[in-house]
Amino acid sequence: MSILVVGSVALDTVSTPFGEGREVLGGSATHFSVSASFWAKVRLVAVVGEDFTDAHRRPLVEHGVDLAGLSVAEGRTFRWVGKYGYDLNVANTIDTQLGVFGDFKPVVPAAWRDTPVLFLANIDPELQEDVLEQVRPKLVAADTMNYWIDSKPEALKRLLARVDVVLMNDAEVRQLTKEPNLVRAATTIRSWGPSMVVVKRGEHGVLVFAEDSAFALPGFPLEQVLDPTGAGDAFAGGFLGYLAAQGAASPLDARRAAVVGSVMASFQVEAFSLDRLDRLTAPEIRERYERFRELTAFEPLP
Amino acid sequence: MSILVVGSVALDTVSTPFGEGREVLGGSATHFSVSASFWAKVRLVAVVGEDFTDAHRRPLVEHGVDLAGLSVAEGRTFRWVGKYGYDLNVANTIDTQLGVFGDFKPVVPAAWRDTPVLFLANIDPELQEDVLEQVRPKLVAADTMNYWIDSKPEALKRLLARVDVVLMNDAEVRQLTKEPNLVRAATTIRSWGPSMVVVKRGEHGVLVFAEDSAFALPGFPLEQVLDPTGAGDAFAGGFLGYLAAQGAASPLDARRAAVVGSVMASFQVEAFSLDRLDRLTAPEIRERYERFRELTAFEPLP
Repeated sequence: MSILVVGSVALDTVSTPFGEGREVLGGSATHFSVSASFWAKVRLVAVVGEDFTDAHRRPLVEHGVDLAGLSVAEGRTFRWVGKYGYDLNVANTIDTQLGVFGDFKPVVPAAWRDTPVLFLANIDPELQEDVLEQVRPKLVAADTMNYWIDSKPEALKRLLARVDVVLMNDAEVRQLTKEPNLVRAATTIRSWGPSMVVVKRGEHGVLVFAEDSAFALPGFPLEQVLDPTGAGDAFAGGFLGYLAAQGAASPLDARRAAVVGSVMASFQVEAFSLDRLDRLTAPEIRERYERFRELTAFEPLP
Repeated sequence: MSILVVGSVALDTVSTPFGEGREVLGGSATHFSVSASFWAKVRLVAVVGEDFTDAHRRPLVEHGVDLAGLSVAEGRTFRWVGKYGYDLNVANTIDTQLGVFGDFKPVVPAAWRDTPVLFLANIDPELQEDVLEQVRPKLVAADTMNYWIDSKPEALKRLLARVDVVLMNDAEVRQLTKEPNLVRAATTIRSWGPSMVVVKRGEHGVLVFAEDSAFALPGFPLEQVLDPTGAGDAFAGGFLGYLAAQGAASPLDARRAAVVGSVMASFQVEAFSLDRLDRLTAPEIRERYERFRELTAFEPLP
């Protein structure tokens, strides 16, 4: 099954205690697409400026991402400047230049309207709703962020009523529901529409709430984390990529999908921009999946 | 196998957004003992003041904790006053009155010197060393806190050289090693002596580093957390209680032990003081262990 993703393509300037990336390829749709491309055919809808070169396109093209929905508008590509301290869970935004992304009105190519899996990456929830009007997917997943929870909570709740899977980080889940307890917060969000709530917890892993079952996976303990940018989108790419590849989304599939997402995110943070995913291989993915099994395995009580 | 614990017995006044406990039984050795008592015979060395009544002793006595090492000194029992906000991971100390605990010089009863498992709960590392001089255990585990890492790092490192298992929270591990990465920090600590490093991460679970293997367990997602006080000590009680019951500490045993510790901690936080452990039953423990298996289980990739 193919996946359609709508989100941002950006040029990021990121510094962490371990290095810096200047004007490197970033954006939610970029990270999602490259990650998902290891599992499924990806179709990307986004906008870039006239300064977006073939060199910028290369990683997406090489991973087979279909760019027929990537429009080029007059102006500059979205730029984000961010900095992380030793607590790599916290991104500090230094500068945001929306450029052409400020006027982004996503248009899904007619031939893509029946793409079975849709990922609405983190953009204005009103635009996410617009996209939903244009398509007939079998499975819809959405991400969001604190900015939209603050500024457009009603649009976000309307969107959630039409979404199957919502992926958010733990702070966003608490903020949206005004409920500090994650179990109760997830129950509240599920009462608004999504049958599945995926709570991303950075280095602490992920929680998946679906029907009566909860699944928890710790983060992979890495010796080297260079840049956490894109980890959440790489997770989403692996998660939905796996579900698209299976053509199913049972709670059992969702567990494997959450592990696959965590595998992809664990590679994503090992280098800046797309550097690690760019040279990632299928055997490496399978091997880290197995290492997740070793990491978390324990026997019943005697 | 029996376990000897040396630590504090206190009267706590704790408030959380969900309630308050006034002058309730607390202290590291108390929480550890009651938790471990579900698995092994526990011998407690601590000091209390003349204000420590039979009513205070009751939960310890009822759980079969041997109090022959609990000395009564002239003065008042150690008191701690603490407050938690909605982020239950952070305890704010409002007041500490050391009382008789300020002059605590642990003396291990002669008959207890060959107790096979020793837990040195969080006290002055120089006192922890004193205890080690008095005993001949097969397995030694120790806890500590930021205060001792700051004030007595050399004594603490001397102690660690003689310890098999160290249990600390993630912030303490980073503080002690000045290394933000937990994998590398654990390797550093293991190079100082302990063969096993157990990193407690509150609601995010636990990491166990031993030989070449790492084990990660997420926290149990609870709908109701009333008071996190004592969670770390209840974890240690379950962890060492299980190892004592098995009479073994292989990496495989340590994995089960970490789950048992997490089970005990998950019950501990469901009520104030010892209220939940006081009415806990063996079938409830087994059932939650099984729920941990359901929570974390996933299949290999197809």
